[in-house]
Amino acid sequence: MVIKPWGYSVWENMQAALDAKFKATGHVNAYFPLFIPLSFLEKEAQHVEGFAKECAVVTHHRLEQGEDGKLVPAGKLEEPLIVRPTSETIIGEMFAKWVQSYRDLPLLINQWANVVRWELRTRLFLRTTEFLWQEGHTAHATDQEAREETDRMLEVYADFAENHMAIPVIKGHKTESERFPGADDTLCIEAMMQDRKALQAATSHHLGQNFAKAANIKFQTEEGVEEFAWTTSWGMTTRMIGAMVMVHGDDDGLRIPPRMAPSHIAILPVLHKEETRAAVMEYCEKLKADLEALEYEGEKIRVAFDTRDVRGGEKTWHWVKKGVPVRLEVGPRDMEGDSVFVARRDKGPKEKYGQKRDEFVSGAPALLADIQKNLFEQAKAFRDEHTVSIDTKEEFYAFFTPKNADKPEPHGGFAMCHWSGEAEVEEIVGKDLNVTIRCIPLDAPHEEGKCVISGKPSSRRVVFAKSY
Amino acid sequence: MVIKPWGYSVWENMQAALDAKFKATGHVNAYFPLFIPLSFLEKEAQHVEGFAKECAVVTHHRLEQGEDGKLVPAGKLEEPLIVRPTSETIIGEMFAKWVQSYRDLPLLINQWANVVRWELRTRLFLRTTEFLWQEGHTAHATDQEAREETDRMLEVYADFAENHMAIPVIKGHKTESERFPGADDTLCIEAMMQDRKALQAATSHHLGQNFAKAANIKFQTEEGVEEFAWTTSWGMTTRMIGAMVMVHGDDDGLRIPPRMAPSHIAILPVLHKEETRAAVMEYCEKLKADLEALEYEGEKIRVAFDTRDVRGGEKTWHWVKKGVPVRLEVGPRDMEGDSVFVARRDKGPKEKYGQKRDEFVSGAPALLADIQKNLFEQAKAFRDEHTVSIDTKEEFYAFFTPKNADKPEPHGGFAMCHWSGEAEVEEIVGKDLNVTIRCIPLDAPHEEGKCVISGKPSSRRVVFAKSY
Repeated sequence: MVIKPWGYSVWENMQAALDAKFKATGHVNAYFPLFIPLSFLEKEAQHVEGFAKECAVVTHHRLEQGEDGKLVPAGKLEEPLIVRPTSETIIGEMFAKWVQSYRDLPLLINQWANVVRWELRTRLFLRTTEFLWQEGHTAHATDQEAREETDRMLEVYADFAENHMAIPVIKGHKTESERFPGADDTLCIEAMMQDRKALQAATSHHLGQNFAKAANIKFQTEEGVEEFAWTTSWGMTTRMIGAMVMVHGDDDGLRIPPRMAPSHIAILPVLHKEETRAAVMEYCEKLKADLEALEYEGEKIRVAFDTRDVRGGEKTWHWVKKGVPVRLEVGPRDMEGDSVFVARRDKGPKEKYGQKRDEFVSGAPALLADIQKNLFEQAKAFRDEHTVSIDTKEEFYAFFTPKNADKPEPHGGFAMCHWSGEAEVEEIVGKDLNVTIRCIPLDAPHEEGKCVISGKPSSRRVVFAKSY
Repeated sequence: MVIKPWGYSVWENMQAALDAKFKATGHVNAYFPLFIPLSFLEKEAQHVEGFAKECAVVTHHRLEQGEDGKLVPAGKLEEPLIVRPTSETIIGEMFAKWVQSYRDLPLLINQWANVVRWELRTRLFLRTTEFLWQEGHTAHATDQEAREETDRMLEVYADFAENHMAIPVIKGHKTESERFPGADDTLCIEAMMQDRKALQAATSHHLGQNFAKAANIKFQTEEGVEEFAWTTSWGMTTRMIGAMVMVHGDDDGLRIPPRMAPSHIAILPVLHKEETRAAVMEYCEKLKADLEALEYEGEKIRVAFDTRDVRGGEKTWHWVKKGVPVRLEVGPRDMEGDSVFVARRDKGPKEKYGQKRDEFVSGAPALLADIQKNLFEQAKAFRDEHTVSIDTKEEFYAFFTPKNADKPEPHGGFAMCHWSGEAEVEEIVGKDLNVTIRCIPLDAPHEEGKCVISGKPSSRRVVFAKSY
């Protein structure tokens, strides 16, 4: 996967927003090695089980001319190195050195990094062998503090997803079978894509003392007793760029929420008449400067000015596809009327409107806020429309089965159903329908019922869905 | 190498400053894969020659239980993957797809990434198997434009090194034998460490059409002729953190130039008297808030407030070692006198002084600027002191030979000498003295002379030195 500049700029905006939230909650960044010795990975039994099947293994440290003159791997390593699929084990080794006393806790670290999980079937942004992410790793003196941290970071992710990415999410616990390998509890946020499948948008793990025991992260308590620390980890990835595409995109291309947009506004001058060209350029330059002097959500308004010498339709289409929130078309007649022609990417392509230039400029921050809100509301309405409570097995199977098997159309959605807590139920719906329990919502009200599959007693509904 | 939070924060400051300069010169960030297929690397003959001897090779994509129950590499790859030592080849593959017409040029891309060069003898920050860096990669329509870009980015690096890192540098060309593998010309900036050795602080390469031919980066000119593009690449790395340590550090630890410092000012309250504790805390909180309301070099002043319950001496020493530019000691008596006790890290430990609190606050930005300037001037004076013109072989050998062979002390420095242009001279001084030509300075005046080693004619002096 190559992330081209426009996409990478979205990632930079995501990084800046998340990084500020991490720092505001007391975390600091650090950097740990890409290569993990195999023996480190083996220390936590469930963890290595979970990651051994899909990892890149470095076995040699140079290339040499082979017999046929071609370069072949040489300098075999005594111990193979694993390209990090995640860094609990190697960071745990360091935490064991850094933590001696309760005074050293909590230790609140985040890392921005690339990780590798070998994928035989890749899917752009969603499932790629290498991806970019941040991984938080913290150590605490008590179980309670570690739980609070796990909750806190889930809140940070939910806030980020909803208020920055305009993606509504459900916060919940993963079931035991869907937990991070080695975790005591995995919290997640789940979002609905426009094909009604679920996407796990971020996870926050309470690791208990499992990794502390594996890596020997011990500390002296205030009372002088030696104890293992309680650790957490949490991450969000470039997969969120895929979520943005699949939640907000339409048939014309991307629709980027203003807070994440590389450019908030694109000015598209109409330059084909030689005699008005210079005047239109000047008018647009001034417009750009005036807009850039304003702030939206604490940042300067970002304006693209497309002076390329291409046809008007091609220029417009270029920015529609890229999903810039607002396009301003400015030709000689707009200039004469001291106005601009405005197109919002969150509205239909025909809903363009003329507006007095000064009125547009002063209203620009509010316009962007309105687009941000509108994209969230559109996504939420879509999700609500495709979220249903189901109480019978027949209905459940019908919901997740396409009407037309030859040419399946979008179907299903989030089925809120009672679940008995049995892993067997998960196995059955997985095998029959490719459906999983996405999460047990944090805010699920207590409600007595019967498991939609097994009929056994249940006390709250969970989210069933197909997923990426 | 693990980069702990304080060091990583320096890197974040470096990134922010450099990134702003790259964007101001028209570059955008993107991201390319970590793994380079062996066949890509082989396309440029000199390039693969230069990097094949020290690269990490991924040969398998999973782990399996071996016969003895231990995990062993499995899933052998058909083609080995090289963990990027640098990305010219894989970025070149993409450029070939992105560039069709002169309208697509120049293409100005930067990448922030980790790279791996296998090192048998590592040295923290200076020579590590994995390091962090940025690598710029650009493609241009003409040789001239590519040369201008190479020069421009060298200027950006020199400006950054001198004005942000407070490290004086010499700008110059590498000799042919020291060029980047595959480049037509390598420009560099060279700095002197306190052991008088040189450190290459950044490089900017004019790659000619070599990589364009290897990757087939072609474009149609305005006249409709198909031509190969001209490319450049340029990079700066976490090695600069090592340079900062070795240029500015003293026997007491780090001395971080204010513009790069994670905290500009550390407030160290004296809290051991219970009856004044709350008042001192409040006084310091207010001081912190007032300082943070000010700006230094366009950024808010960063203040650390060390409320740890440790002895005063230990607290002071902690911040001295970390190299925070200014320490403020604040006890009950300072508070009563409405003053603070100031220690500058660029001055001796005994030169502390009391100052009225308001006077200190209003003068803080100027104080930081003065420390920044002073560190640069100290480093420059040191470099000038150990830079000499040498015209005889005897003097040259004496300059680079320690007086005491058993317990060598810092010796040598930058020897400005005539050089004939012969690679043999480089071989001789390399073998005899471990000395290399660091660069042919851009601003070296024309001066007729004789090569210090071979006696053959030369028209300008170059920089000879031992180096890292």
